[in-house]
Amino acid sequence: MLGIQSVASYLPKGRVDNLKQADRFETDREFVEQKIGVATLPRFEETDSVVSASAAAFDRLCEKVQTDKSEIECVVLCTQNPDKGGLPHNSALVHAALELSEDCACFDIGLGCSGYVYGLSVIQSFMAANGMKKGLLFTCDPYSRILDPEDKNTCLLFGDAASVTYITDTPRYKLASAKFSTKGTGSEALQKTEHGLEMNGRAVFNFALQDVPKQIKRTLASAELTADDIDLFLLHQGSRFMLENTIKRAGIPAEKAPIRLSETGNTVSSSIPLLMEAELDNNPRRILMSGFGVGLSWATAIYEEVKPN
Amino acid sequence: MLGIQSVASYLPKGRVDNLKQADRFETDREFVEQKIGVATLPRFEETDSVVSASAAAFDRLCEKVQTDKSEIECVVLCTQNPDKGGLPHNSALVHAALELSEDCACFDIGLGCSGYVYGLSVIQSFMAANGMKKGLLFTCDPYSRILDPEDKNTCLLFGDAASVTYITDTPRYKLASAKFSTKGTGSEALQKTEHGLEMNGRAVFNFALQDVPKQIKRTLASAELTADDIDLFLLHQGSRFMLENTIKRAGIPAEKAPIRLSETGNTVSSSIPLLMEAELDNNPRRILMSGFGVGLSWATAIYEEVKPN
Repeated sequence: MLGIQSVASYLPKGRVDNLKQADRFETDREFVEQKIGVATLPRFEETDSVVSASAAAFDRLCEKVQTDKSEIECVVLCTQNPDKGGLPHNSALVHAALELSEDCACFDIGLGCSGYVYGLSVIQSFMAANGMKKGLLFTCDPYSRILDPEDKNTCLLFGDAASVTYITDTPRYKLASAKFSTKGTGSEALQKTEHGLEMNGRAVFNFALQDVPKQIKRTLASAELTADDIDLFLLHQGSRFMLENTIKRAGIPAEKAPIRLSETGNTVSSSIPLLMEAELDNNPRRILMSGFGVGLSWATAIYEEVKPN
Repeated sequence: MLGIQSVASYLPKGRVDNLKQADRFETDREFVEQKIGVATLPRFEETDSVVSASAAAFDRLCEKVQTDKSEIECVVLCTQNPDKGGLPHNSALVHAALELSEDCACFDIGLGCSGYVYGLSVIQSFMAANGMKKGLLFTCDPYSRILDPEDKNTCLLFGDAASVTYITDTPRYKLASAKFSTKGTGSEALQKTEHGLEMNGRAVFNFALQDVPKQIKRTLASAELTADDIDLFLLHQGSRFMLENTIKRAGIPAEKAPIRLSETGNTVSSSIPLLMEAELDNNPRRILMSGFGVGLSWATAIYEEVKPN
């Protein structure tokens, strides 16, 4: 059985003061702090890249758990803002940076804010089908590369980060149940254009409030569980206001659903692993995670602690 | 059990006469015909896109097999030259174009010439793990978007195409065995730069001749098969000269390994499905496919005919 053994993350050293940004955009500071919920945004500097940030996340993983690079048989990297325009796939560049074995499958996944929940299922099922025992799932989607500097809606929101999740055959958490949905007809709500990232905040907000709670409830029902059975709800950290309302609408007890994006912003597919890294210290037995955004795409999964034999 | 039920492809209407291109580059016409092996290159026109070409491939699939769009639960699209810079993932745009159900998982895979062999394993294992029965794997990687018009090495080689493979629980072929390898340290042999696609033809040639035959032999050995047990070898159609030598070095009987890129060129991840679509009419019992290129990445898989009960 494969599952999650450990999670590590990396924030680049660059920082944007979001209150100063608020002033520049002539936006109310209280709105930025309370509604968006972001005080500081980590930001790629000139020398940062998807590959260097992913490698730095891996270094942090190695401080937590013992890894043997020669045993890594699979690397999956989730991004929609890759180095080198995605050719080669950035997982191959990470493969080179980490000096991994040639007997290693590498591929990238193109997904946004639902990417972590998808990516976990993709890498675990691919590894299981091919008899692989150790693998790495990276997320790194530096939206700073596509932000329109005049667009306050996105500039005040998105931060850069990277994460790595160690998938092994001696996991702490295993997948119990998952649901995946797509509404391609709504894709214009979040898209890259010649002007950079374009976001229709209202459309994304309505989507999060209408569709995400429904999927959370369906996933619980299909696993024959209720919110009471879940110790920890890890929802994609889109914005504070969106999160508070989505949590309420889904009937999730607020104390079980951390909101923590003040020092990170919305880090796209890295937001759930960032949160998870910190929360795993509390040893939750059962975790529900839900990612939603670009696509429009949304995915919910329940992970359960593996009881030691 | 999931597997391949059918394959369909689409070539855009635009055509480049490769002999005229040879004249423009002051390249010997015989070299273009015999060594590269390409007379005509299909080429995207203004109105073509990854999404429109993928949708056209799906239309062709529907002419071959009965499909019920409401039953499609998974769409995976392999490209490194997506529409809209890959944000949103193009599988979501195809999802919209085909008017598929919301209960459908969609994600893109970033891989080059090994993408089809990988993609088949990725979609099948993901669908199986999540109890899905019908899915679509698309390939469409229009290199014309990144060709440097002054670079004869690449302009004479790459053609645009799309394919779709119908994955179902009533398959004609099921996966028997697969191997996946990566050599990230060699990635500079094929990469996107600010000048467009850069290819070190000699490095790619050496890679194809050294590493691909070894993997083909290992895959056969691990399945306890020999070349005699395989009816059809589908090798990525890189160039005629590279193919002839790779086939020889792998000990494959030439008559079992079609070389057919004269009217398509190297269509990246679409080259194997393009070939497969035509060859399935001959009802091969056992197929070995091998894709290799960008990454560097190479993958080999053996598919076996499913015997009707």
